[in-house]
Amino acid sequence: MSRYGSMYGPEVTFLGVPPCTLAEPASYFDADVVIVGAPFDGGTSHRPGTRFGPSAIRQACYLPHDGSRPSLALGVDALRDLCVYDAGDVEMFAGDIERSLAALETAVHAVAAAGAIPVVLGGDHSIALPDATGVARHHGIGRVSLVHFDAHADTGDVEFGSLYGHGQPMRRLIESGAVRGDRFLQIGLRGYWPGPQTLAWMADQRMRSYEMTELVARGLDECLTEAYALAVDDCDGVFLSVDVDVVDPGMAPGTGTPEPGGLTSRQLLDAVRRCCYELPVVGVDVVEVAPPYDHADITAYLGNRVVLEALSAIARRRRDAAGGSPPWDPRRPLLG
Amino acid sequence: MSRYGSMYGPEVTFLGVPPCTLAEPASYFDADVVIVGAPFDGGTSHRPGTRFGPSAIRQACYLPHDGSRPSLALGVDALRDLCVYDAGDVEMFAGDIERSLAALETAVHAVAAAGAIPVVLGGDHSIALPDATGVARHHGIGRVSLVHFDAHADTGDVEFGSLYGHGQPMRRLIESGAVRGDRFLQIGLRGYWPGPQTLAWMADQRMRSYEMTELVARGLDECLTEAYALAVDDCDGVFLSVDVDVVDPGMAPGTGTPEPGGLTSRQLLDAVRRCCYELPVVGVDVVEVAPPYDHADITAYLGNRVVLEALSAIARRRRDAAGGSPPWDPRRPLLG
Amino acid sequence: MSRYGSMYGPEVTFLGVPPCTLAEPASYFDADVVIVGAPFDGGTSHRPGTRFGPSAIRQACYLPHDGSRPSLALGVDALRDLCVYDAGDVEMFAGDIERSLAALETAVHAVAAAGAIPVVLGGDHSIALPDATGVARHHGIGRVSLVHFDAHADTGDVEFGSLYGHGQPMRRLIESGAVRGDRFLQIGLRGYWPGPQTLAWMADQRMRSYEMTELVARGLDECLTEAYALAVDDCDGVFLSVDVDVVDPGMAPGTGTPEPGGLTSRQLLDAVRRCCYELPVVGVDVVEVAPPYDHADITAYLGNRVVLEALSAIARRRRDAAGGSPPWDPRRPLLG
Amino acid sequence: MSRYGSMYGPEVTFLGVPPCTLAEPASYFDADVVIVGAPFDGGTSHRPGTRFGPSAIRQACYLPHDGSRPSLALGVDALRDLCVYDAGDVEMFAGDIERSLAALETAVHAVAAAGAIPVVLGGDHSIALPDATGVARHHGIGRVSLVHFDAHADTGDVEFGSLYGHGQPMRRLIESGAVRGDRFLQIGLRGYWPGPQTLAWMADQRMRSYEMTELVARGLDECLTEAYALAVDDCDGVFLSVDVDVVDPGMAPGTGTPEPGGLTSRQLLDAVRRCCYELPVVGVDVVEVAPPYDHADITAYLGNRVVLEALSAIARRRRDAAGGSPPWDPRRPLLG
Amino acid sequence: MSRYGSMYGPEVTFLGVPPCTLAEPASYFDADVVIVGAPFDGGTSHRPGTRFGPSAIRQACYLPHDGSRPSLALGVDALRDLCVYDAGDVEMFAGDIERSLAALETAVHAVAAAGAIPVVLGGDHSIALPDATGVARHHGIGRVSLVHFDAHADTGDVEFGSLYGHGQPMRRLIESGAVRGDRFLQIGLRGYWPGPQTLAWMADQRMRSYEMTELVARGLDECLTEAYALAVDDCDGVFLSVDVDVVDPGMAPGTGTPEPGGLTSRQLLDAVRRCCYELPVVGVDVVEVAPPYDHADITAYLGNRVVLEALSAIARRRRDAAGGSPPWDPRRPLLG
Amino acid sequence: MSRYGSMYGPEVTFLGVPPCTLAEPASYFDADVVIVGAPFDGGTSHRPGTRFGPSAIRQACYLPHDGSRPSLALGVDALRDLCVYDAGDVEMFAGDIERSLAALETAVHAVAAAGAIPVVLGGDHSIALPDATGVARHHGIGRVSLVHFDAHADTGDVEFGSLYGHGQPMRRLIESGAVRGDRFLQIGLRGYWPGPQTLAWMADQRMRSYEMTELVARGLDECLTEAYALAVDDCDGVFLSVDVDVVDPGMAPGTGTPEPGGLTSRQLLDAVRRCCYELPVVGVDVVEVAPPYDHADITAYLGNRVVLEALSAIARRRRDAAGGSPPWDPRRPLLG
Repeated sequence: MSRYGSMYGPEVTFLGVPPCTLAEPASYFDADVVIVGAPFDGGTSHRPGTRFGPSAIRQACYLPHDGSRPSLALGVDALRDLCVYDAGDVEMFAGDIERSLAALETAVHAVAAAGAIPVVLGGDHSIALPDATGVARHHGIGRVSLVHFDAHADTGDVEFGSLYGHGQPMRRLIESGAVRGDRFLQIGLRGYWPGPQTLAWMADQRMRSYEMTELVARGLDECLTEAYALAVDDCDGVFLSVDVDVVDPGMAPGTGTPEPGGLTSRQLLDAVRRCCYELPVVGVDVVEVAPPYDHADITAYLGNRVVLEALSAIARRRRDAAGGSPPWDPRRPLLG
Repeated sequence: MSRYGSMYGPEVTFLGVPPCTLAEPASYFDADVVIVGAPFDGGTSHRPGTRFGPSAIRQACYLPHDGSRPSLALGVDALRDLCVYDAGDVEMFAGDIERSLAALETAVHAVAAAGAIPVVLGGDHSIALPDATGVARHHGIGRVSLVHFDAHADTGDVEFGSLYGHGQPMRRLIESGAVRGDRFLQIGLRGYWPGPQTLAWMADQRMRSYEMTELVARGLDECLTEAYALAVDDCDGVFLSVDVDVVDPGMAPGTGTPEPGGLTSRQLLDAVRRCCYELPVVGVDVVEVAPPYDHADITAYLGNRVVLEALSAIARRRRDAAGGSPPWDPRRPLLG
Repeated sequence: MSRYGSMYGPEVTFLGVPPCTLAEPASYFDADVVIVGAPFDGGTSHRPGTRFGPSAIRQACYLPHDGSRPSLALGVDALRDLCVYDAGDVEMFAGDIERSLAALETAVHAVAAAGAIPVVLGGDHSIALPDATGVARHHGIGRVSLVHFDAHADTGDVEFGSLYGHGQPMRRLIESGAVRGDRFLQIGLRGYWPGPQTLAWMADQRMRSYEMTELVARGLDECLTEAYALAVDDCDGVFLSVDVDVVDPGMAPGTGTPEPGGLTSRQLLDAVRRCCYELPVVGVDVVEVAPPYDHADITAYLGNRVVLEALSAIARRRRDAAGGSPPWDPRRPLLG
Repeated sequence: MSRYGSMYGPEVTFLGVPPCTLAEPASYFDADVVIVGAPFDGGTSHRPGTRFGPSAIRQACYLPHDGSRPSLALGVDALRDLCVYDAGDVEMFAGDIERSLAALETAVHAVAAAGAIPVVLGGDHSIALPDATGVARHHGIGRVSLVHFDAHADTGDVEFGSLYGHGQPMRRLIESGAVRGDRFLQIGLRGYWPGPQTLAWMADQRMRSYEMTELVARGLDECLTEAYALAVDDCDGVFLSVDVDVVDPGMAPGTGTPEPGGLTSRQLLDAVRRCCYELPVVGVDVVEVAPPYDHADITAYLGNRVVLEALSAIARRRRDAAGGSPPWDPRRPLLG
Repeated sequence: MSRYGSMYGPEVTFLGVPPCTLAEPASYFDADVVIVGAPFDGGTSHRPGTRFGPSAIRQACYLPHDGSRPSLALGVDALRDLCVYDAGDVEMFAGDIERSLAALETAVHAVAAAGAIPVVLGGDHSIALPDATGVARHHGIGRVSLVHFDAHADTGDVEFGSLYGHGQPMRRLIESGAVRGDRFLQIGLRGYWPGPQTLAWMADQRMRSYEMTELVARGLDECLTEAYALAVDDCDGVFLSVDVDVVDPGMAPGTGTPEPGGLTSRQLLDAVRRCCYELPVVGVDVVEVAPPYDHADITAYLGNRVVLEALSAIARRRRDAAGGSPPWDPRRPLLG
Repeated sequence: MSRYGSMYGPEVTFLGVPPCTLAEPASYFDADVVIVGAPFDGGTSHRPGTRFGPSAIRQACYLPHDGSRPSLALGVDALRDLCVYDAGDVEMFAGDIERSLAALETAVHAVAAAGAIPVVLGGDHSIALPDATGVARHHGIGRVSLVHFDAHADTGDVEFGSLYGHGQPMRRLIESGAVRGDRFLQIGLRGYWPGPQTLAWMADQRMRSYEMTELVARGLDECLTEAYALAVDDCDGVFLSVDVDVVDPGMAPGTGTPEPGGLTSRQLLDAVRRCCYELPVVGVDVVEVAPPYDHADITAYLGNRVVLEALSAIARRRRDAAGGSPPWDPRRPLLG
């Protein structure tokens, strides 16, 4: 069988959407979205387990796995209104990060090149490097901005003797030119890392990083409006990278480097919705769901809903762009 | 012994209130409130375990189980200011939903007929059908509105080949006429169920369902004010049904069908307080606490506090209605 | 899609064996074994959760889910040497035990009628009634003996007002005549149930029940030899029913009615191996794996290995019966 | 209410036996056995939590809490054949070990003085001091031997600056003369404590301590036979003290000082049975069940079954002593 | 070795800061802050486990334990900008609360007397009595106000027959005069304890207790502003006592007496920051982290971050007081 | 600081033994044993987490961490009778297996070259390659036999595209000649891996692999006697590699690839004792303890005790070799 399927456990697709095979472009020629699993935790600096993230995110739902999810909030069924496939996992051996990231970049680029939006299920945040690079190679080096929800800046230089790892992808992306430093929008940072030297480097790149203090003082919505405007200034597309640890560990314990004081799940879902409804998103990854540290699957459920929220907003954006019905209004009653 | 006691484990009453026996009306003739356990999870569509909900909710408190709980917030001791009994559990075999629900309806009706408020501890949400029906049979078919906190509308038609189950009680209630569709107030809905066909049916019934998007955009308080006004428009009483999954799974993991992006515990407690303080509540159920998926009993604790909050607000409502002291003011200092 | 697939979660087959559809006999006409999922916990008297047993047992393995499992101990690859299909789950709504058990009996009978061995993944032990009945309807009422590993006799009469449930299947089987009382071999009983009246009924049926005390005093192997001889005395086939709670709860915590003092996992695997190697097994069920109470999936892993051990021994029995190679010798070195 | 009830959580009695009140001797004048809860963990040197042991042990059973438990193995219903009461808990504030132990000694002595066997549910092993002392004060100082199942000798001198604690009760008992050193039978010791100085003291007292190495090399049964003979040599009664950590932590994780390499649950139950069947037991405690570290309640279940095994063997011993029926034979079939 | 080190487990210092020895003042003569472990849970009224709090709080961080933690929010590295030592644990035997609290008071006073801020890691809240007393003995009896984040008032009189315990420290502090009743600021109270009699006593002392209802109705920030003004009115210093149960149990499950409806982690961190930035804090304790009930260490992580937030704000306060750079502005971008 | 310390979390040494620094041979010139941490899980094929194994194994003990552990069974205090140091962890980045294994081999060889026995705490079983190679480089290529307790043969060829990983070290060791195939003694194999091709390769190497079936049929002791005799036939030393998954998952759940039906903890400890007492052990590793999947630390406790058992037996072997006291006799009473 040429399709890799699932690296760990039985093969399942995201909530039952049809499978495709990356090596056979005909199997996804008409895709709007292709799900790609990146079951890799060889780059994490602390708690491992995100290798089981793709499997957990695909399955964490109590409804039938029938390839349909009508959104109450947005009035679309993203899995049906869009043409969504699941390409299974990329083989990513934890013990060889360079080979693994290269394989993922190839996969992501193949999806982008086919005209589809890759939605990558991590895996640790190391994968943002191949994810955004793969997309940028198709949409234009430096032409894709990055909206990055995270407790951490992920702009480290060398960790454990390696240029690659879950604390460094954003630096590598800027260094390579794949993403412009001044089109990097980081939301939710907090805690005690990185130190002044790295912050100085970030400032030099003109990154825009919203620490929780600013988000609380100014209001999340105002900050998002500002950031989202920057994201489409002289860029052609947006890559959305969601590290589930942007949410408070109390609500998302199943992750590797928990940092107290984060967003609520509700805030993250709303922010992701706005991002995908307002901006021309060309790629998405959802990372750092670590099932061994999860309880009652709540972090995996959140990861699943972040994916669905993104897809639903993309579908609604397309429908509203097509006109014919009134645009989305968050104040409108469900049954109105 | 004619009293059934506890279906699972040793017999305990809610925080030590005195027991009564449903088959002996004299044992609760003077009741203001009668607690009834509904240890049933035969109707759940996913994670079971709510059969242990009544036992868990009754016990989840670190204070002495002495039948007294003076509320700091409301300045009443509901378990003493009201006459509260615990009738133990109704026998509800998981494998026979129709027999089980019928037995519960009989029990709830007996309580209502005695002039007391039944407070039913679930169990899965299947039980809302006998709960609200039992109350309506006493207070008047169609004369009781329903305030319904939940992530899910629970208006499905047939699931797993059955008319009964935790996804369908609200539809059965409206179909039977027990509760008017246009006096159904749903708060906290979200996620990806039900689909358009069911939503259309709900709109046809003129249900008023507040999805989280509207609650966030307009503010929870404003929406509650609107809903609570509707609840007493041409109705004589209110049944309050609280599905603990209305709270975010991060804060209430012990439940069967967790849907990320919900209310905080604080919001739910405040909303329940307002409901029971402002409205003529004639029945309550608290459902979907599933201990096998709970951690450190936090969801059971929340269920216990939802019950106490409801009872305390009812007690305070009665005291303020009696006059003689200044009405409740949330801005007043505790020690004022 | 006519195939039911998985009742809970995504559709997966047992370790990747090919699927078949019960409604389409052509899809399994050549089967030696057909796996059937019975995701039912509506009959349990205490902790629920076995509805997730079929899914957990199918998946609990760290090896690739490739439909191959060469046994070190027995030198066969049961999933390849035998023709094994997985028919997915039977829809079994927890709230309607009679309808659910009837549906399962139909499924099991269909498998047996096709000449294959049904291997049913429970689910609570209620399912032994349709499992053994379905097999006996094909192989002959009263012509199939029952080898029953369990901490409990499961010979109750009426529980919670019902004739059906996980404490009663063995009584129903004997009453209906499907299985002869004197060809019921129970191994591993212990604890404090049932009481004298039921024990008297069991003695009247001439059941042979090995309590742990006898197993320890006489030795498990001697007792098995005795029991297995009875099993093939004037019977044409053997149904093997394994309740995972026969193993000590310390080693198999994920179950509903744990009774301390049981077998070790090693003892169970060896006993199952002997049963399937020495006797003409015509049906198997593995029940009472309850994932919500499991830790690190160890009980699900055990359930998975019980199935594999049974299949491997069946395969080896067939190979040795065919001759041509030396029969299985437990003392022979692995690499001899 | 003069009865203390439960120190933590709702009041429940052991599996539903009737309550009694220690301060009212009339309430247990006819008792054969009185259960006493000792919810104390102020003496533990590591993981706390045994304060919840009495509550957990009383409740850890899936059968109805109806005050009846017919033993399959022994053919008696100890809770009915004997007159068993539950006196509830003794108030034992963790922060004041001397006051707490004194209160317990008073309670235990009251039970013994009433002619009943006290069965104390711990609690950490500190309580063995008041337990055995309370019994010896009635039956004679130095006239009661001690059969002690444990991974640890509990013969420390001063720990954390205190003479009292769960590592020292056995030394205090010998020093006070309550129990003779040469009638101390310790079974299951292992690990790395105590050191040579304490071992020398123990040898000086002529204690007989069976380390696991000797138990494995000589066989548990042979060692028990030897120890049990000593226990009744020039003593009038036997106190049985069971620390659940004598069982391997893999099978009994819910304890404070787990030491790998212990007995199986089956071995412990059989050894307790022999002790209570063969010897004139006048007091029992079951200690060190620590629910916060338990999984799926398996250690609490084991503690519950140790109590039942002891009571059942006592009941059977009395029945067989009365004659009239054949004595207990472990090789006899259950339904013989 | 004269240093006590860690009472449970290996000796570690808070995130790798250098150790000091309380008995050797020269070892911390230059300290700004001294961390002291108070591994005591003998005073808890319900779930124990806080004895492991000091160890858990010291370790709960995914970054290198290198004695450096540059705060993104405050632009200081408290562990380096301040001179911080860790004195290890005070020996506090759970079974002797009076001796234990006395030992802690001596330790805390020694730190204060050396001119440093003691930061005490609990342990249960019993320790607030020696903590605040030890500080007040140095800074002046009645001259230190107390800012107290907690779900509970901790003003009980006698519990379990003892004047000392985690429900009574605040009463003892006021009774002794160590802290003035009218300079007691309690934030986050809620639930059903204490009763009217104790509340009347509290009012008599002119305590200022903000129940959650007032905090929600008026806004947390406004209440803090009011409370913090009071704290420095005719007092020379502030002791900050943070009971982690002020946070909602959903976000901080690892605690002994969880009360639903609390603050979010974000709110607590911001309130602690304001307290330590705006007020002259002379002592801190962080209490009631109970690892046995924690999941994925999230409550321990929160405790660790509360300590760091306090230290970072103290460091920033000192830097801003020294002038030379613009004062802290929460609205300023991270990289501005 | 030149010493690496702990890769994850605070630096601690094994039960408090003194530290040494591998780069400074003077710091361990007199060592009998040097502990080395190998916090690597980049080679695991399924559940990760063994990176936290070294830290967990070092700490999993309820006794003071004082560098002393007098063995009850063997009458020696290995941590004092031998000169034992802890060199801390080797930096082993999960994402680069080749660099990580090379660094470990250097470390292990340094220890062996210093005349000490390296005891390596894993980490996944990938590390057996550098562990045994490092030892063999000093003691002679092909001159060290390997006693290997494991559920798995670990003789795979290429997995996930890599020659290195936890399923392949034994093949690499034989291929390189570091260890002779016919001096490879594998004990405890079971389950469904590897397949016939690999088994044929193993047979060609003349490996001796004891599957559980043979161990049960012939008896563990007899098999060990046979294997241990082979181990010293024409070899100068023995490397002992203990994969904790050789124990049944019910007793050792915290591991990555659990295979039901294993040894008991008791059996493993006794077998390790015999190995280290009877054979000239020159190196040890203890691998596959995976804390994220552990419960109540029981698997970490087991790992800790395996290390102590090995060290104690080595110490006793040396003492008995020195003569002067009677040799070790397992039947001798503890206090004899």
